[in-house]
Amino acid sequence: MRILVTGAAGMVGRRLVARLLADGHLGGRAITAMVLHDVAPPPVPMPAPAGAGIAVDAVTGDLSAPGAARALIAPGPDVVFHIAGVVSGSAESDFDLGYRVNLDGTRALWDAVRLSGTAPRVVFTSTTAVYGGPLPETVPDDFAPTPQSSYGTQKLMCELMLADYTRRGFMDGIGLRFPTICVRPGAPNGAASGFFSSIIREPLAGLPALLPVPRDLVHTHASPRSAVGFLLHAATMDTGALAGRPNLVMPGVAVSVAEQIEALVRVAGPGAAALIREADDPAVWAIVRTWPRRFEARRARDLGFEAESDFDAIIRAHQEDGTPAAA
Amino acid sequence: MRILVTGAAGMVGRRLVARLLADGHLGGRAITAMVLHDVAPPPVPMPAPAGAGIAVDAVTGDLSAPGAARALIAPGPDVVFHIAGVVSGSAESDFDLGYRVNLDGTRALWDAVRLSGTAPRVVFTSTTAVYGGPLPETVPDDFAPTPQSSYGTQKLMCELMLADYTRRGFMDGIGLRFPTICVRPGAPNGAASGFFSSIIREPLAGLPALLPVPRDLVHTHASPRSAVGFLLHAATMDTGALAGRPNLVMPGVAVSVAEQIEALVRVAGPGAAALIREADDPAVWAIVRTWPRRFEARRARDLGFEAESDFDAIIRAHQEDGTPAAA
Repeated sequence: MRILVTGAAGMVGRRLVARLLADGHLGGRAITAMVLHDVAPPPVPMPAPAGAGIAVDAVTGDLSAPGAARALIAPGPDVVFHIAGVVSGSAESDFDLGYRVNLDGTRALWDAVRLSGTAPRVVFTSTTAVYGGPLPETVPDDFAPTPQSSYGTQKLMCELMLADYTRRGFMDGIGLRFPTICVRPGAPNGAASGFFSSIIREPLAGLPALLPVPRDLVHTHASPRSAVGFLLHAATMDTGALAGRPNLVMPGVAVSVAEQIEALVRVAGPGAAALIREADDPAVWAIVRTWPRRFEARRARDLGFEAESDFDAIIRAHQEDGTPAAA
Repeated sequence: MRILVTGAAGMVGRRLVARLLADGHLGGRAITAMVLHDVAPPPVPMPAPAGAGIAVDAVTGDLSAPGAARALIAPGPDVVFHIAGVVSGSAESDFDLGYRVNLDGTRALWDAVRLSGTAPRVVFTSTTAVYGGPLPETVPDDFAPTPQSSYGTQKLMCELMLADYTRRGFMDGIGLRFPTICVRPGAPNGAASGFFSSIIREPLAGLPALLPVPRDLVHTHASPRSAVGFLLHAATMDTGALAGRPNLVMPGVAVSVAEQIEALVRVAGPGAAALIREADDPAVWAIVRTWPRRFEARRARDLGFEAESDFDAIIRAHQEDGTPAAA
């Protein structure tokens, strides 16, 4: 089978590609060819023995450029993982860029799929950032999303297209609303959500970390390992069970910041927690306080999607998986 | 003040234009100029004395054509009524047409607004057809819409853009999810919803009508008069009360078909009801049975939107308003 991965240079994309090349098959079928696409050159991991026969093609470019999407679909992928996108901060600071890449780029890709007539499985990474404004403490699966960011707006618009293109038989789509992925590897970044990872990652490495929000803030997390698991399950599950509603909130671990730190102490000892210093940041708090806290995610769990059962497991996944090669 | 009306040749557009020209003002401000746009030449009603000084410009064309939207926004409207759109049957039968007009045309209009820097009030007619799939008997305001038509998909995508463009200050938008408008004037048409009107309109005119669905089917209606009322209220209300969620389900009258016919008997006597003949149509029933039945519409009512209080009033509105000139 042939696989296309957009966003293949990103944190989740790299891990997905590494996993597919290590497995050499997907859903019981041997992988014969993979196209990896991103705006930056996607790394091509050394294939494991199982994936040694896979032809891997790395493509760099802008998905919304004329002809780009059609070229990616031309090889006739059986499965498309569409992970590419401008992140939330950039989509907010650059209005045109966000709509061009996140909306027009996605539409171009799906129109190329539509016009190919091949109806592949299309797995789309959406986000719980589709939710905004007043929310219940636990967000039910049938609660109406009202995004309060351009990023959430664009992702939700793409979800709607995915459902419509799937309903009409142009593709076999499934959209996954990812919770915050934690622990993210790499250095602290400017994202408002960055501290969720850095208060774990930095102390584990013996480094100090700042906590900009109150410890009773509750948020939902899943590990990069779970994120890859979501994508693989979505690529291989029976989509007939989606019953015309192919966009799902993924499961995760809902914990307070205090519970995150308690888990850190259990895994790494009290010395790790001592490296966390409280440093209230009203700007971060103003953003983070409006985010959803817990999700029902019952449909996804019933359909076989699995996340960690506690935050300790998320920390252990970080310790075990580390940072993949070239990430 | 200057007003732009797209879809000005349509059933609701004509009535809105006639009302604005009759009033001569909107929200306490005198109307000085109106641009009426549609793909068919919009009729320009004889202005009433109050509207005699209004400069009316009728423009015919495709909103999604290059430059068309910018030309419509160039005069700097204070209020934009964006009513234009490809109807649901056409959006389903012609995929490209639906996305081009309903999505791209709307986006072109709002991008023209955005680039104008004038941030006008923008009133958008959406639809309760954004709802589909399994629904509760009464749909709450915060229930997630999962459209089961390309029309509903496109309208909901436009709602999301409207909310985002408004949040960012590019316009002062408000989206109205219209229930089925009843009683529609004119001859019976091929729309699946057509019988809701024809079982009232035809008997009132002494003509026979066919009933293709069971009498216990419940559906929500508002008169063309209420539709115009929704638009005028949306154009003049304090949008600060929308609190970042500018898309609203409009109120309506939820009745069974049997209750519609009982109202017809009260208004026009038993002879009218005798003109209705049951003629089950499985094709119509297969579509109509999936539609939403009742709506909470609490936010809209709390914000001052009003529909009829019973179906008798909807019939009387039809008798009193009749068919406007040139409709």
